[in-house]
Amino acid sequence: MTIRIGIAGIAGRMGRLLAEEIVAAGATLSGGTIRPGAALATLPPGLPVMTDIVALCEASDVVIDFTHARTARAHALAAAETGTVLILGSSGLSVTDEEAVAEAAHRTPIVYAANFAPGVNLFLAIAERMAAALPPAQYDAEIVEMHHRQKVDAPSGTAVALGRAVAAGRGTTLEEAGRESGRDGHCGARGTGTIGFAALRGGQVVGEHTLLFAAASEHISLTHRSFDRRVYATGAVRAALWAAGRTPGLYGMGEVLGIR
Amino acid sequence: MTIRIGIAGIAGRMGRLLAEEIVAAGATLSGGTIRPGAALATLPPGLPVMTDIVALCEASDVVIDFTHARTARAHALAAAETGTVLILGSSGLSVTDEEAVAEAAHRTPIVYAANFAPGVNLFLAIAERMAAALPPAQYDAEIVEMHHRQKVDAPSGTAVALGRAVAAGRGTTLEEAGRESGRDGHCGARGTGTIGFAALRGGQVVGEHTLLFAAASEHISLTHRSFDRRVYATGAVRAALWAAGRTPGLYGMGEVLGIR
Amino acid sequence: MTIRIGIAGIAGRMGRLLAEEIVAAGATLSGGTIRPGAALATLPPGLPVMTDIVALCEASDVVIDFTHARTARAHALAAAETGTVLILGSSGLSVTDEEAVAEAAHRTPIVYAANFAPGVNLFLAIAERMAAALPPAQYDAEIVEMHHRQKVDAPSGTAVALGRAVAAGRGTTLEEAGRESGRDGHCGARGTGTIGFAALRGGQVVGEHTLLFAAASEHISLTHRSFDRRVYATGAVRAALWAAGRTPGLYGMGEVLGIR
Amino acid sequence: MTIRIGIAGIAGRMGRLLAEEIVAAGATLSGGTIRPGAALATLPPGLPVMTDIVALCEASDVVIDFTHARTARAHALAAAETGTVLILGSSGLSVTDEEAVAEAAHRTPIVYAANFAPGVNLFLAIAERMAAALPPAQYDAEIVEMHHRQKVDAPSGTAVALGRAVAAGRGTTLEEAGRESGRDGHCGARGTGTIGFAALRGGQVVGEHTLLFAAASEHISLTHRSFDRRVYATGAVRAALWAAGRTPGLYGMGEVLGIR
Repeated sequence: MTIRIGIAGIAGRMGRLLAEEIVAAGATLSGGTIRPGAALATLPPGLPVMTDIVALCEASDVVIDFTHARTARAHALAAAETGTVLILGSSGLSVTDEEAVAEAAHRTPIVYAANFAPGVNLFLAIAERMAAALPPAQYDAEIVEMHHRQKVDAPSGTAVALGRAVAAGRGTTLEEAGRESGRDGHCGARGTGTIGFAALRGGQVVGEHTLLFAAASEHISLTHRSFDRRVYATGAVRAALWAAGRTPGLYGMGEVLGIR
Repeated sequence: MTIRIGIAGIAGRMGRLLAEEIVAAGATLSGGTIRPGAALATLPPGLPVMTDIVALCEASDVVIDFTHARTARAHALAAAETGTVLILGSSGLSVTDEEAVAEAAHRTPIVYAANFAPGVNLFLAIAERMAAALPPAQYDAEIVEMHHRQKVDAPSGTAVALGRAVAAGRGTTLEEAGRESGRDGHCGARGTGTIGFAALRGGQVVGEHTLLFAAASEHISLTHRSFDRRVYATGAVRAALWAAGRTPGLYGMGEVLGIR
Repeated sequence: MTIRIGIAGIAGRMGRLLAEEIVAAGATLSGGTIRPGAALATLPPGLPVMTDIVALCEASDVVIDFTHARTARAHALAAAETGTVLILGSSGLSVTDEEAVAEAAHRTPIVYAANFAPGVNLFLAIAERMAAALPPAQYDAEIVEMHHRQKVDAPSGTAVALGRAVAAGRGTTLEEAGRESGRDGHCGARGTGTIGFAALRGGQVVGEHTLLFAAASEHISLTHRSFDRRVYATGAVRAALWAAGRTPGLYGMGEVLGIR
Repeated sequence: MTIRIGIAGIAGRMGRLLAEEIVAAGATLSGGTIRPGAALATLPPGLPVMTDIVALCEASDVVIDFTHARTARAHALAAAETGTVLILGSSGLSVTDEEAVAEAAHRTPIVYAANFAPGVNLFLAIAERMAAALPPAQYDAEIVEMHHRQKVDAPSGTAVALGRAVAAGRGTTLEEAGRESGRDGHCGARGTGTIGFAALRGGQVVGEHTLLFAAASEHISLTHRSFDRRVYATGAVRAALWAAGRTPGLYGMGEVLGIR
């Protein structure tokens, strides 16, 4: 019998991608929650749709949730009470919410991650290892990212996460190491051990990140390019298949991917 | 009989590279000027060395000068009076000096350029054509450059020249188009028609520049990487061979390379 | 009054993209041809659909045709007889067909191109200019392309077109210059003046091409990346707007883009 | 007191780079071997030079050897007998020679590696981890390398080593996985799980390698660029400082760099 996977927020853009990926992975799509009053027209006919997360949990082995930070706590509790695995991709959780999720994970397996793209998680893990192996006195770390023209802030959250990973690999923090972001004008010679950031904006780029370690005699760089948001759905379904049947605990994508 | 090429400032780093490239090109190295009191030990024995630019001009068909802005005017006059071709690579000339050079070019061929690397000149010419062909409403122009860790300012002069070339291709100026340089923090969505700049610093990179036009459906980019300063010497010798025997006039590297 | 643009083969994948791009450009979608018996369900209601190309021409200022080589001749004749502008993107035309198209272009403007992506056409034009400016004795030309994993041949047609453009810029042909394609095993030192080709295959890459000129001291490269096929529709609509009202003649995308 | 490091073959190109890097690292250059009859003119005056490896070992805490496969065995024995650390960078050792080196490593620390560039070793280690994390059914692995125009074979040894690392990470061998090298002509759709290789040749590129994992929704790639051979000397001196005072054993650069 295949694994039954349910989707919190099945009517949204991410919910639809998840539905397609669950079917493509050969699992059973057990249903989804919608907001009361949401349009049903475009959902597959015959699919159980409900407004109650507990009902969805009871019908599922795993529930995937990319909805909102404000429902994360309730969803984690529902998962814990019903013994359902939870794949949680909502971002912006408060510290209290994160504690509630961790508490719930004592009773059921929960995979919680900021980014479910396998390549991005691998990138973060590798960035830390590279930084640990390449002395900052000889290797300058620079991070370049490019995103679509609508993006309003820089550097991207993933770029900052990369910077934190580099700092961690060097046994320090990004704040301690120092960031050189947005060089413009007379900014002086590059600091040793600092981490540089540069941001490009243009077209409809979903996300590109490069981490470069530049020494006098060699450069080594790592680049990740996202082409569509489907990669997050693929990663979440992969986490679902991995987590089903595990012992309770709070897991990250690094563990799902076997990279830590 | 081969062309006789002399070097103003033969004892400097650039002078030595020029000497090697003149010989490699099969031309005759006719001699060079040195500052009074300069060390001669490392120059080829038997090579005519002098302190007077007029004497060098009289011994040469072409003189190459990468010395200083402050001698450009006198060297141009000496070239004009002796009917010697001048290849002038000094930077930072005042408007008055540039006028004097242009005046001298009525009497002898002068090739004057800010950068003698063939690839960089080609890059500038192509940047303008690309910009003319790709509407700013659909193609966002972004310029990224990387230089060694000692460089104290950003963006590089060549990056700014690229930005000016893009603006010119679009029938405007860089000031009118607007630059988005050094994005950091909440900088808002990208403007339409503006030109973006980003600067990386690290290792001992001689110079890397990329110009990217990013539309929703396609990206087109041009990249130039300099590996050593010899490329400037190669370009200057090429200009010397091209200019020898031309009619008087002020030429640029675009004409030498046949790219305009 | 806006320009009326019709689509030959409106029910196909390309036809739908064209329909969207015509509307997005602010032109009037005047109708389209379908094959007899084709499904109409997904077309916009109220849109004139017909099976006769002459009827479409009479209802349109411009007709865009990306259907088949075998109908190109008849479509060109219909355009000529009705005085309708034709944008022809079908590939694989025989020499006889091309002659018939050229003949028809004496009576009406026809834009005929193998590839309507603005960036690709610009790339081809620039490749030729770069090659003309960079001596083959010093600059090795290498072409790398990447396409999706299903592609069965290598190098791509566009890569070969790039090779031909480089050869033309050097005053020779690809056959005369010689190609080094698919290096594997003991292949000997690189030839001077030959053109190298390498092919990558993976994922769902629509198309990436890089042309690199590598000298000892500098590298200059040009890269084009296609993200979706819509770029061809955008280019065709641009050609339609450009060609409307021109004098009869056979035009290419280079003229539309102002790059030759 | 600083570590005393000696150099086997101090008069060669690699020997000179090693001498400079030892001094730059603040260690003591204890001397070097030369072949009987070799020119001494360009070596630092006062430096102990000898023709006997045992004498060099006795004067040193560590000896670095990048000479020849044929002397590796004798040098390993000399190191073992004198209790000197050996950094061995010769390539092309036979299986018997490698066994002799491993035997000697029971008595003294030996670091033996095919490539001492920190970035390359990191690259190989990371390639294996990436491959283990990214399922071959979804991620196509492609390796591209570029080297100078004189290189006569393809793909490079490091490219093949990368392919082996990818295969190992996937729990197979390069032979089992299958290589697609040098695609040209009608080569069919890409195989699933195979490893692709492409080779570029041009200019004076010391070495560039890219490993790309291409899925439908994301690409992740790792690139290494070598700018000069000094990087091998830097890596060897780093290995010397790391190995001095260790317990006997056969070590690799992965351990020196802390990447395994």
